[in-house]
Amino acid sequence: MGDIFKGTFIHTPQLGQLEIFSAQIKVINGVITEIIDKIPCTDHKGGFYIPGFVDAHIHAPQTRNLSLGLDKPLLQWLDSTTFPTESKFTGDDYLFYKQVVKQLVKNGTTTACYFGTIQNEANLALVQAIKDLGQRAFVGKVCMDSNSPQYYIESTDNSVASTLDFITNDIFKSTNLVKPIITPRFAISCTKELLKGLGKIAYKHDLPIQTHISENPDEVSFVKKLFPDSKDYLDVYDQASLINQRTLLAHAIYLSEDELQRIKASGCTLVHCPNSNFSLNSGIARTRDWLECGIKVALGTDVSGGSSLSMLNAIQTAILASKSINLLKDQNYKPLTPIEAFSLATLGGGTAIGNRNVGKFEVGMAFDALFVEYENPFQSFTQVEDSFYGFLYNGDDRHIKNVIINGRNIHFD
Amino acid sequence: MGDIFKGTFIHTPQLGQLEIFSAQIKVINGVITEIIDKIPCTDHKGGFYIPGFVDAHIHAPQTRNLSLGLDKPLLQWLDSTTFPTESKFTGDDYLFYKQVVKQLVKNGTTTACYFGTIQNEANLALVQAIKDLGQRAFVGKVCMDSNSPQYYIESTDNSVASTLDFITNDIFKSTNLVKPIITPRFAISCTKELLKGLGKIAYKHDLPIQTHISENPDEVSFVKKLFPDSKDYLDVYDQASLINQRTLLAHAIYLSEDELQRIKASGCTLVHCPNSNFSLNSGIARTRDWLECGIKVALGTDVSGGSSLSMLNAIQTAILASKSINLLKDQNYKPLTPIEAFSLATLGGGTAIGNRNVGKFEVGMAFDALFVEYENPFQSFTQVEDSFYGFLYNGDDRHIKNVIINGRNIHFD
Repeated sequence: MGDIFKGTFIHTPQLGQLEIFSAQIKVINGVITEIIDKIPCTDHKGGFYIPGFVDAHIHAPQTRNLSLGLDKPLLQWLDSTTFPTESKFTGDDYLFYKQVVKQLVKNGTTTACYFGTIQNEANLALVQAIKDLGQRAFVGKVCMDSNSPQYYIESTDNSVASTLDFITNDIFKSTNLVKPIITPRFAISCTKELLKGLGKIAYKHDLPIQTHISENPDEVSFVKKLFPDSKDYLDVYDQASLINQRTLLAHAIYLSEDELQRIKASGCTLVHCPNSNFSLNSGIARTRDWLECGIKVALGTDVSGGSSLSMLNAIQTAILASKSINLLKDQNYKPLTPIEAFSLATLGGGTAIGNRNVGKFEVGMAFDALFVEYENPFQSFTQVEDSFYGFLYNGDDRHIKNVIINGRNIHFD
Repeated sequence: MGDIFKGTFIHTPQLGQLEIFSAQIKVINGVITEIIDKIPCTDHKGGFYIPGFVDAHIHAPQTRNLSLGLDKPLLQWLDSTTFPTESKFTGDDYLFYKQVVKQLVKNGTTTACYFGTIQNEANLALVQAIKDLGQRAFVGKVCMDSNSPQYYIESTDNSVASTLDFITNDIFKSTNLVKPIITPRFAISCTKELLKGLGKIAYKHDLPIQTHISENPDEVSFVKKLFPDSKDYLDVYDQASLINQRTLLAHAIYLSEDELQRIKASGCTLVHCPNSNFSLNSGIARTRDWLECGIKVALGTDVSGGSSLSMLNAIQTAILASKSINLLKDQNYKPLTPIEAFSLATLGGGTAIGNRNVGKFEVGMAFDALFVEYENPFQSFTQVEDSFYGFLYNGDDRHIKNVIINGRNIHFD
């Protein structure tokens, strides 16, 4: 019973610790049950398995604007580019979403934490597309009841009711791979009442939570004005019971030391979105500080604030972002190594919110993997590690020969 | 007589000024002789021409180490990774070089300024490969007579003689596309005597010059020690008559204001190599300052200090590098726009050293162009500019449908 995956495996059992081994991995019902004949391996044998990528922050509808409109800062960009696009989504967008999910899977994203739109018909179309393609995902119905354009806003009651409708929809009953996630857009577009309502739903239904925090200085100031009773941005969410070990907070560029300490204590995860942080000129997050503080860290593309849907791009850009801090601002700031960035893209997100843990090859983990063959016509690799580095720096979907999610090979037409 | 190229053309007639037009471009003997029916154009019609990319700084032999060994700073990396590899090149490396040139052309590099090795047999193999594939290029026999490993060093006399042999070789007589370029590696690996010898050859044979400058703080200190009679790094080259309007200086991260002013006055070009500057933790160059000073600026991949041979990567990384200065160090520092970075990759390098000018679509320029079709399954572009942005951010060699150099379609097997 079960399937055997045999070959060379590369992963990070701990953050930043690369392990390469050959073995036979036995998978039953999607889960690794046994690792047989595991021995260290260095030789390049043509291909290797790595854990599938976890994109811990992506806006599925914004893919329509991929690489467009990136000349504005966050709040203007939302008004000019994002809200007009998101507001037009309907249940008819199944085929669009299917293309988005397919491109993500082809590029190695085996798990995604999606923001949808406020419209449930469109969100259900997204869930259906994900189910049909076999990706692992969390999908959020976006909630916005204030400071949003008239054409793209809900009443507080409707937002809460619509969230309940979404999370209890039968569409989630026939799958273990796709789960709903409570999704207040961000503090600016949510009243205190809505945030509290969503906090209660998350608690009652035992659901994970995702939102944005401290992405842009203007946003941070506006939040301070909107929530005078909160001591800081984190406190806005905390007062609504939205901060716990299953919460994903994206960006987090302008958090205070005190906020970082409370985030650490809460067990919630910060999602680093380096491409988006550059693209919208938001700022450069100090991910090393997060890691040193002991905070859980994941990586996200944040399409389409981010200009690329590839997690390889997220890995590369995370390295550049942290190097820029070291080179320009703080010589004592230790940049992320390529292996650490790879860790964040696999283990970091994979163990963050615990649906079924993924991100490394160990007994008990679900088996989500990419089979990679990275070659080029002018290098002949003798070390598998060299081919792996080649893939990290110069790989793309062409080098991902198989995508396996929950032990199942994903097939593309 | 001549060929007509008809369609949509995108270029920057001035740095950072995007122009999109439809026209018929007439090309005779590789040169644009007439632009017929030129009208502004905004509609997406499936594909467009852009000027071919100019990689103004690339080490052809180092492609063997692409994406490897990037955990060391410059001087250690040269010793551990670069010199051992370069020293092994021979005349038998024709097929290797052919693969390198082919990959570059496929990725849109229609002109490259190559560093070879010290061995002329290998350099001639490189020239032959370039000629056979039809690329436009400058090729430099690398000169090193000091502070280099025993297994990879020349005597001063041999370096000069070997340079003379190379530049007068018959291989250059049957081509207008490939030219020799005088190439002292950098001040550390050249004696004053060698530099002066090379300066004389460049003057006598009217040849362009390429080298490195101020890439790394340790390098800069070492140069200061080695050349106590020079007032700064630039002066080392200047005293040897190596600084003029046909000189390319790569990196230039740590130049003084005075050096920048003298570079401006000399008319020489600075080559920005953002990927390499990040990869080797060299520093982040203030390209905006160069532009504001009126200095000519080109862009280079600097493989394999740079981890990618794609000029699209160089464009993207140039944007990130300049954004990081703005975000971390100097709010008044204006980051490069995507259009400016595109300009540097085409017009900047194309007009820098003036073999035959390329880089924009104007009468009198040589016609080096890429025909690009950028589509994806979830965006349907109505504006050609949007498709162009998609290519800049998410394009790769698959979207470059035709490469035209000197009016001739390049065919790959």
